[in-house]
Amino acid sequence: MNVQVRPQRDQWTGLLQRPELDNTKLEASVKKILQDVKEKGDEAIFHYTQQFDGIAINRLQASQQEINEAISTLPDDLKNAIQLAANNITAFHKKQLSVPEVIETMPGVLCWRKSIGIEKVGLYIPGGSAPLFSTILMLAIPAKLAGCKEIILCSPPGKDGKLHPAILYAAQLTGITKVFKTGGVQAIAAMAFGTASIPKTYKIFGPGNQYVTCAKQLVQQYGVAIDMPAGPSEVCVIADDSCVPAFVAADLLSQAEHGPDSQVLLVSPSEEVVKNVQQELKKQLAVLPRKELAEKALQNSKAIIAKDMQEAVELVNTYAAEHLILSCENDEAIAELIMNAGSIFLGNYSPESVGDYASGTNHTLPTNGYARMYSGVSVDSFVKKVTYQKLTKEGLHQIGKAVELMAEAEGLEAHKNAVTIRMK
Amino acid sequence: MNVQVRPQRDQWTGLLQRPELDNTKLEASVKKILQDVKEKGDEAIFHYTQQFDGIAINRLQASQQEINEAISTLPDDLKNAIQLAANNITAFHKKQLSVPEVIETMPGVLCWRKSIGIEKVGLYIPGGSAPLFSTILMLAIPAKLAGCKEIILCSPPGKDGKLHPAILYAAQLTGITKVFKTGGVQAIAAMAFGTASIPKTYKIFGPGNQYVTCAKQLVQQYGVAIDMPAGPSEVCVIADDSCVPAFVAADLLSQAEHGPDSQVLLVSPSEEVVKNVQQELKKQLAVLPRKELAEKALQNSKAIIAKDMQEAVELVNTYAAEHLILSCENDEAIAELIMNAGSIFLGNYSPESVGDYASGTNHTLPTNGYARMYSGVSVDSFVKKVTYQKLTKEGLHQIGKAVELMAEAEGLEAHKNAVTIRMK
Repeated sequence: MNVQVRPQRDQWTGLLQRPELDNTKLEASVKKILQDVKEKGDEAIFHYTQQFDGIAINRLQASQQEINEAISTLPDDLKNAIQLAANNITAFHKKQLSVPEVIETMPGVLCWRKSIGIEKVGLYIPGGSAPLFSTILMLAIPAKLAGCKEIILCSPPGKDGKLHPAILYAAQLTGITKVFKTGGVQAIAAMAFGTASIPKTYKIFGPGNQYVTCAKQLVQQYGVAIDMPAGPSEVCVIADDSCVPAFVAADLLSQAEHGPDSQVLLVSPSEEVVKNVQQELKKQLAVLPRKELAEKALQNSKAIIAKDMQEAVELVNTYAAEHLILSCENDEAIAELIMNAGSIFLGNYSPESVGDYASGTNHTLPTNGYARMYSGVSVDSFVKKVTYQKLTKEGLHQIGKAVELMAEAEGLEAHKNAVTIRMK
Repeated sequence: MNVQVRPQRDQWTGLLQRPELDNTKLEASVKKILQDVKEKGDEAIFHYTQQFDGIAINRLQASQQEINEAISTLPDDLKNAIQLAANNITAFHKKQLSVPEVIETMPGVLCWRKSIGIEKVGLYIPGGSAPLFSTILMLAIPAKLAGCKEIILCSPPGKDGKLHPAILYAAQLTGITKVFKTGGVQAIAAMAFGTASIPKTYKIFGPGNQYVTCAKQLVQQYGVAIDMPAGPSEVCVIADDSCVPAFVAADLLSQAEHGPDSQVLLVSPSEEVVKNVQQELKKQLAVLPRKELAEKALQNSKAIIAKDMQEAVELVNTYAAEHLILSCENDEAIAELIMNAGSIFLGNYSPESVGDYASGTNHTLPTNGYARMYSGVSVDSFVKKVTYQKLTKEGLHQIGKAVELMAEAEGLEAHKNAVTIRMK
């Protein structure tokens, strides 16, 4: 880690800067795939699955038999772990459902708001070495609670043409409507435009590589919404003398193992703490299977020694981390001072990985400084909140004059007249 | 209006299609202005204000004296009308504030969520013939309730270098922090990048012409969020025999007067109703000041005669209108069947214009079919919802095993280790 001792405030922006994400170089190739899928549908999907995943398939949807067979191979203890996580995620997200409440803003003027599930949503789960079945829980559980009618999942097949059993188990457990074996840009295109096999959806969720991220950005031009802009995963730890350096090091490494572009930041008012954490990092890194990935991420990462805890908080608010761990004595008081973060982990027994999997909170969170203005995924992400108003004749008389005056002042005579004609 | 009698279902998509919005032709000129403001700051703002608004200014912020003087010229009855609207909007939006609730998903595993106002937000109000002070209420009131610390407003000055007194009154009333006299692309650029005079903001709200819309789309690439994608305003009315044709006509005209690209749609199971509404349209149009604008919009608009009320509802759900008026007998039952709409107006005494100004609901709503997956502006638009978790040592033991198993199955050993090291 690159250690910075009490940097001047005018250096902060530079120090806390993330790497620029430039997708423009990919754009041409991503656009070509989007266009191909838009025009040729399934045929283009088969073609790109052959090209990129190296597997010839002629049926995209995973059959129920295929799902059942795969699930039967999954160890029971993993099934139980997934079930436990699903229970906690459900318990936490269920409380995000809102009940419409009618508000009488003036006598006879009734207004209310109702959450309605987005009818069709598409979830994307990347393939590769790690089968991210946990992300299925994080997306499908709130989608189901929100009342989305069609919840489809796309994920790239392995060389054997199959999906990982844990992906299929999580999909079945959470009530996903249909599972499709396709990944990359072609999957995003399919969920945006629809093909003979894959239904068009209104909003697309889920992580992915640079190509998938670029495709999600581009399909917004065709009237499809996406969960949020994406960047590499991040953790920031504020640690004081009350921390356990071995725990802090383990948390930093759990972020670093994601890959060389992972963002890892340690902020502490204590030079001693930073020194001890670094020693622990060395020790733990040595025995890590994904050692090389983590090592590269750590080389690009920073430890900042702040003047005091107040400055540490200011630094962290400037950075706006996806995950923020407060390994400090007054964790609850400090949490109250945080303005910008995706999810906050308080105390010595709340590692990021509990939130990644099973505490109940969502792990799809704003990266790249977007925590300044974006929320993580929640039930809110899967609904639209529709407003309603019903006025009685008397209610209209209560506010009619004000509407007439305002409409007239804005030069909108027909707006005024829609009230006047009813007041006569 | 173009009348369609019981169109076949396979014609619906074509019939309900909005005009394509193609901003690509503007992009080059918009990008140039964005770049100029990014590089030259205030100097570029002065230059473009001279060029586009035809006025040389050397100070962007409206002074308190200027604001006070303008407000003193505003008639009391208009002030009172704005105050009444502000009260209702406050009453409705106040109920959108949420109180954090701690959820113990398992013993010792505490999770909660808190809404935190976005620190800096920028509001844009277009200039031109109509001073849209009502939009200030719709944006600044929820921003203030959300707890945003800096709420700035940009609006183009008139030829006299001033803003309309009603704009300044609404800004003062709602507690806007600073008002800047600049409009168009240069205003969006200023709020996205910041200049010496105008602070950089994290999220930009408000309506505008094609150039402003394009600028809002483009600044998202620089890490700024926007309220929602924009298109021309729309109203759809479902009317049955219980409607008053003169009221329906007045509602259609109040949308049509916005301009020739306004979207106006009438859906009814009754040919009689459509005939009567058309006669009323002719009558009311004749005396309208903005007759020409409204006439053009009506020429592009449709009246669809549906087989029955059920088909009318399906049509309307397919269209996903910004504003939906239910001028029908069973308005409340029909409202329950609507899946896609921005805001719904029930019964004969709830014209769209009450929602535009004073009922209490927000008038910044999803157009162009975005009501399928976007909500209108609310307090939610001005906060991020941050999640928190705090586990006791015992809490970690409750879920530790599940986290270890899941992390291992995803191939993320360091994630597992962050738990293991704490359980030892």
